[in-house]
This record gives sequence, structure tokens and C-alpha cells, in this order.
Amino acid sequence: MQIAILLYPGFTALDAIGPFETLSNLPGAETVFVAEQPGALRNDNGTLSMLADASLAEVARPDIVVVPGSPNALAALETGAVSAWLRDVDRTTTWTTSVCTGSLILAASGLLKGRRATSHWLYLEELASYGVESTGERVVFDDKYVTAAGVSSGIDMGLALAGRIAGDRVAQSIQLLIEYDPQPPYDAGSPEKAPADIVEEWRGRKVETGSLFA
Amino acid sequence: MQIAILLYPGFTALDAIGPFETLSNLPGAETVFVAEQPGALRNDNGTLSMLADASLAEVARPDIVVVPGSPNALAALETGAVSAWLRDVDRTTTWTTSVCTGSLILAASGLLKGRRATSHWLYLEELASYGVESTGERVVFDDKYVTAAGVSSGIDMGLALAGRIAGDRVAQSIQLLIEYDPQPPYDAGSPEKAPADIVEEWRGRKVETGSLFA
Repeated sequence: MQIAILLYPGFTALDAIGPFETLSNLPGAETVFVAEQPGALRNDNGTLSMLADASLAEVARPDIVVVPGSPNALAALETGAVSAWLRDVDRTTTWTTSVCTGSLILAASGLLKGRRATSHWLYLEELASYGVESTGERVVFDDKYVTAAGVSSGIDMGLALAGRIAGDRVAQSIQLLIEYDPQPPYDAGSPEKAPADIVEEWRGRKVETGSLFA
Repeated sequence: MQIAILLYPGFTALDAIGPFETLSNLPGAETVFVAEQPGALRNDNGTLSMLADASLAEVARPDIVVVPGSPNALAALETGAVSAWLRDVDRTTTWTTSVCTGSLILAASGLLKGRRATSHWLYLEELASYGVESTGERVVFDDKYVTAAGVSSGIDMGLALAGRIAGDRVAQSIQLLIEYDPQPPYDAGSPEKAPADIVEEWRGRKVETGSLFA
């Protein structure tokens, strides 16, 4: 079972690492980070680099594809190579997945038309503009397409997918070993729960690259 | 405000990325990944590489230190360089922090003696063996020493620390932007909550490197 995690300049690190940490230890899993060119890719704020060990061409038939998001996700599609690769590998994947605005990358590549899917709360309207039934749910399964909401939701998606693939007992073991017993010190993790003025502030200015508070 | 995140061969990726994603966007933050030698470091199961942009010697006075864990954390101390660096920078840090078995690295470097601290649930006894008041709490503040439990708890630690550093409003903004509204599909994230037989199975075999289910 090959799991391909897509990297591109400006990706959000936790978008990739949530699914990675929950899926890469599944029995029989072989995980590979893939990008247009192998080598180092910087994250959205430029302070982290991860390596892509393989080029898109080297990963032709992954069983699972994971597409992380970015504040500037559509930049990943500039050369056309990522969209072409996604459309190609999607013909044979068992699961095609995304976290955060990774769903915009899937949708802009033509893979989510008419399907239910989610994204970061700030981008749900943009997702709908691709003919997607956009929902604010945290993890959405529609046939083999699995999408997760903003950044940290990839952990929940990874565990749900681990359960579908390997059964509840394995998924529970993974949850126990990563000690995923969340105790956030605030209750501000969704636009419904955060203070209204904070939500309005962020709705007013789309986050692009760089520091959130710069 | 310089934030130094330590990398070493075999680190657990989410241990580093939880604090990274919650702290690196703080106002005025400059984040640097640091290791004995700059360059690529492989994670615990060998399928992910992150880059250290700086050597230990190049990061002499960080304000915040983050030490991620590993199933084989003490291997990070083999040459003595990491312990020497931690003891040195700790003299001037504002916060010295760890996630998961990163607390074993701090403790083995002599920095947690007599303090309250936490670790991954499988390693609480080992932590106590260093003269630490070991507790199973998820995030523990003792003066400037902040320790978090297993792997995913670094997200909770990062948010708590963001609040101390920059105030509740900034921390809530970060939580909202990473959409940290956890909805795990199982309730197995701690030894108290997971099925007892799964807990016993993992207590019986300490996880070293490689795939959990190999």
C-alpha cells in the first residue's frame, strides 16, 4: 500500500504531518513524499523545509494520495504538472484525500465535481465555485474522496481512514500511541466557537503567505 | 523572539510540528530548526526528512527551545553535543520545552531534576528515574519548563504557550486558523480511555523505531 503525500512550495506543514503520522505506520504502508522535483520544499511561512524523495513521474500508481493545503494553494498548479499527475493517479487510487485548501487543488484539477467535500472554513465558498457540494464538516467521505477541514483536521481524517483501511483496533492503537486525547486550552477552533470579533477579523483578510500576524 | 526546534535522527515528526504550527506565526517570532549538523534528518520510521537550517553552534541564545521526542530519544545524546547545547542555552531561555519523550532528553541533560514534568504515557516511569516528579497530565508548566505528553499533545502545549506569550486573543486566533476543533473518530487517546487490552498490548512492548505494526 503506497501512500503518496504531495509537497509543493508554500505547503502548510501540519496539513501534511497529521495524515502522515496517523497513516504511515499502518501495516504494509510505504509512504513517499512527492513533488514536481525531488528535493527541499519550504512551507508557507518559509521557516521549515521538508524533502520530497521522489518526483511525480516516479510515483505513478499510489494507492493513497494526500494533498495538503496552503494559504496560496492554487500556486501549486501553475505549471500544470500537479493537476495532470493528480488526474492520472486518481484513476487507480483507492483513496484520494486532502487537508485544508488541498481540496481546492483537487477541485481545480477536476476531481471533486458534484461531490461533497470540505476545506478550511475561510475557503468553503471558493470550493463551492468548482461545482462542489461544499460543507463545513470536519471530515467528509464521498466514495473514495476524503477531504478534511483546516490544518489540524488531517489528524482526525487520518484516524478515520486508518479505521476504514485496517479496522478500529489498529486505528485505536494509533490514537493511543500518538496520545491524541485533545485538551485545547481554548475553545476557539471553529468559526462557530471562536469569539465573533476574531472570526470577523479573519474573514476580512484572507491569509496569504508569511506570518499570520505580520 | 527566536524559537529553536531541535532535530536529531529518529525524531517523531508530529512532536516537532505541533509546537511549530502553533508558535512559528507568533508576532515577532523567528523559528529555526537546529541539529548537530545542518542538513536532512530522517524521522522515526525513516520515510520523512526535514532540514535543519542551522547547527547547534549557530543558535547560541534562543528564547524558546522545543525538544521533540522519539521512540529512541536518548540516542540523540550519544555524542554529548545535544546535552551540552541544551544546558548552555537553557541558562538564558525564556521557555525550555519538550513534547513526548523529549522530556527524557531534557531530564537526561540534567534540566528537570526536582521539577514536575510529563512525557508519553509509556515513558512516565523512565522520566521519574531522573528525579523528576512525573505526571500523566497533558501539558505541565513548572516555572519556565513546559512539557507535553505524547506526540499530538504538542499542539495543546503550543497553544497554551502562545497564550502566555502573546495573550488569549492571539492564541485563539491561531486555534481558529489551524481549525483545531478536534473530533477524533475514536475515544482511545489515553491509557485511561483506550480499550484495556490495547493498552496492555503496548505496555508489553516498548515501541522502538520503525513501523508500529511491523
